[in-house]
Amino acid sequence: MNKINQKSDSDLTRDFHSVWHPCTQMKDHETVPPLLIERGEGVYLFDSDGRKYLDVISSWWVNLFGHNHPRLNLALKAQLDKVAHVMFAGITHKPAIDLADRLVELSPDNLQKVFFSDNGSTAVEVAVKMSLQYWRQTGHAGKRKFAYLKGGYHGETLGALSLCGIDMFRENFEEVLMENIAVEGPDCYRCPYGMKPDTCEAECFDPMQKTLEDHRESLAGVIIEPLVQGAAGMKMYPPVYLKKLQSACKDYNVHTIYDEIAVGFGRTGSLFVCGEYELNPTFLCLSKGITSGYLPLAVTLTEDEIYSAFYDDFATMKFFIHSHSYSANPLACAVANESLAMLTENGFLESLQSKIEALGKYGKRLRELKWVGDFRQTGMIAAVELVKDRETKTAFPSEDRVGYRIYQEGLQRGVLMRPLGNVIYFIPPLVISIEEIKTMIDTAHDCIRAVLD
Amino acid sequence: MNKINQKSDSDLTRDFHSVWHPCTQMKDHETVPPLLIERGEGVYLFDSDGRKYLDVISSWWVNLFGHNHPRLNLALKAQLDKVAHVMFAGITHKPAIDLADRLVELSPDNLQKVFFSDNGSTAVEVAVKMSLQYWRQTGHAGKRKFAYLKGGYHGETLGALSLCGIDMFRENFEEVLMENIAVEGPDCYRCPYGMKPDTCEAECFDPMQKTLEDHRESLAGVIIEPLVQGAAGMKMYPPVYLKKLQSACKDYNVHTIYDEIAVGFGRTGSLFVCGEYELNPTFLCLSKGITSGYLPLAVTLTEDEIYSAFYDDFATMKFFIHSHSYSANPLACAVANESLAMLTENGFLESLQSKIEALGKYGKRLRELKWVGDFRQTGMIAAVELVKDRETKTAFPSEDRVGYRIYQEGLQRGVLMRPLGNVIYFIPPLVISIEEIKTMIDTAHDCIRAVLD
Repeated sequence: MNKINQKSDSDLTRDFHSVWHPCTQMKDHETVPPLLIERGEGVYLFDSDGRKYLDVISSWWVNLFGHNHPRLNLALKAQLDKVAHVMFAGITHKPAIDLADRLVELSPDNLQKVFFSDNGSTAVEVAVKMSLQYWRQTGHAGKRKFAYLKGGYHGETLGALSLCGIDMFRENFEEVLMENIAVEGPDCYRCPYGMKPDTCEAECFDPMQKTLEDHRESLAGVIIEPLVQGAAGMKMYPPVYLKKLQSACKDYNVHTIYDEIAVGFGRTGSLFVCGEYELNPTFLCLSKGITSGYLPLAVTLTEDEIYSAFYDDFATMKFFIHSHSYSANPLACAVANESLAMLTENGFLESLQSKIEALGKYGKRLRELKWVGDFRQTGMIAAVELVKDRETKTAFPSEDRVGYRIYQEGLQRGVLMRPLGNVIYFIPPLVISIEEIKTMIDTAHDCIRAVLD
Repeated sequence: MNKINQKSDSDLTRDFHSVWHPCTQMKDHETVPPLLIERGEGVYLFDSDGRKYLDVISSWWVNLFGHNHPRLNLALKAQLDKVAHVMFAGITHKPAIDLADRLVELSPDNLQKVFFSDNGSTAVEVAVKMSLQYWRQTGHAGKRKFAYLKGGYHGETLGALSLCGIDMFRENFEEVLMENIAVEGPDCYRCPYGMKPDTCEAECFDPMQKTLEDHRESLAGVIIEPLVQGAAGMKMYPPVYLKKLQSACKDYNVHTIYDEIAVGFGRTGSLFVCGEYELNPTFLCLSKGITSGYLPLAVTLTEDEIYSAFYDDFATMKFFIHSHSYSANPLACAVANESLAMLTENGFLESLQSKIEALGKYGKRLRELKWVGDFRQTGMIAAVELVKDRETKTAFPSEDRVGYRIYQEGLQRGVLMRPLGNVIYFIPPLVISIEEIKTMIDTAHDCIRAVLD
């Protein structure tokens, strides 16, 4: 079936034989095997031959403080010496209490309760289920659809997938998905209203306004990735859209679900987007950076208003029946607490400003390349969109696999990128140095030229 | 809103303020706060006042080797000193390769590929999505429903929940769930065919046979918890049912999905049910015991036949697009590898026989109590079903909260149980001693009497 097969009894052969990797056409590994990573140190990953790679995508957008961080390792080991895990029904523990308490403190005032789960998908499923049950228990059983943005991504369990605005993820499962409502959202690079993101009034909110008006009786909530639509290709849009959304959802009695799974915990330069812009989502979903890329953990924060609708005598059966065996895993919570301490102490977030400026300064240089249609940045996240023709903004056809080829070039040069289609993006660990930011951009520059020149 | 609120600034108050616990009516905590667990050691958990509790439910059925096990701790620390996590697309690592390789070796021959995710729900979602996409890519797009057993439980993300045969979990979300087919399954305690589980021929398979016949064109798969339906109240049934299922699914070209999330990794006395009875499910979902109760991790195993239908040139877009950020977390895999080594070395599983016998011997004594309608056992899992009237097998009404009261009595006596309705069950860490088994049963005996006498 493959070439590696024949070679040797190496780890990579065993990988090829037994492992089915996520989001991967396994046949690609016939010619390009996966990196066999052995260890990590700061912003670098090292393979089994000792080659090092600058991890500019934070291992799928999760890592904040680099790999193998002494403080995080210590926090994990200290908890391990007490207890690795206990069930979270009928039982509680200090790591979870501390984390919940601190998240309530650091998030917008309306968010008062923390529900734990394991990953971004489950955090979204929890918000969806809470919203549905809330409406049912408050006399609005008809409210059972959700609106989501085209280009939106909120995870891949079937409930979360029903909120996905990217065809590729959902097309094989369309017939079994819950019926929700896709809404045209912002598209700042190709703005159909001819506006600029720093001066517009989110004219592109009109379709959402209309959806809310038309479906107010059946809409339970609207889910959104605030400021940055990650999987869509790090598409970015201004906060004015979020302000309009909040106001309209209030008018039409519809919940807002903020999926800050990718952008939360400092990526945008502030702890949470909702806090930065004084927005009050009904639900806030967090994961990825929560443990700084160490362990799976997720939370869904919500309001006392929601919580109260479930709080009653047992016999009413109004409680929220949802659980995962490893909910609020103490090891993960212990790491999350340490990471959150590091994020919020000694002006850490403020110290990101000079890096954010460097990312902008060096990143903009990529515009010199004729294939770079757009350079965009939100805090520590940046992206360039490659186009066949800058004037017409014509995309490269997907069969050209431009991104995949740039990814391979990057590996040759010791930089781990993972483009989304024709979008090369940077979401490095927050501890990356300004010099490393320059290296990252310079390497991307070289890779783009190597593939497209 | 509550009493604890007023008392002090203790951890429990903070818990009550900020944490929304899973599967819990939070109002119950007004009068009975959760246990505040500080550390674990072997089969015991210790609260913040130093009181110890025998963990007879393995912290939601996950723990195999007790808490704070030196070998598992060491394995975790050793991996931590290399790297906590790397993304699993385009990258691989030895802990995941070793685990996948070993699981393929230890599971039935037909299972050749391992797909990683984070919890039981996602393992099931992965199987469902693979099955759907497989049928679509092999010219059977009409196959898109799943059959499941009444009483079955397979997780609570919306896809997994659509396969749930217990009303309580799904009734608030019924309208948005994927339409699948509930089938009457085994009910050995109240067998409508008047048979005995050790001599029957699974006459109760008839409804499933009929479902398969009637829906062969639309059925993608059948999902089942082999031998023990956990959340239903540890309902147990004989393997002959599984043999009939396998044969019928083959006849009608329908996948079988084994959810061994609860029963896998030694609980039944063998490593996997499918292996023990030479059964060959199309998909095998594992989680819970996989890390011996340390960290969230799950896998879905499947056949090369399934894998091959996704293996093609990239441009065909046939690959399986599903991912979670922390898929195949190296720390979790490292613990899983050590746990699997411990399970399979030095005749560990064989050594369980004397404990299984002791569990049966002591457990049967509970039958002396007039409220014990049934004592049932499968390997290291046992349960008693309490009834109001042994002759008529009449259940206690749920508002009596018999199980909850017994749970509280257990805590007073230092034993952590968590009954499912009127079913008191035992699924202790496999390392429990025979003496502790006796204590566990004796305490349950006392608790039942204390509540019902």
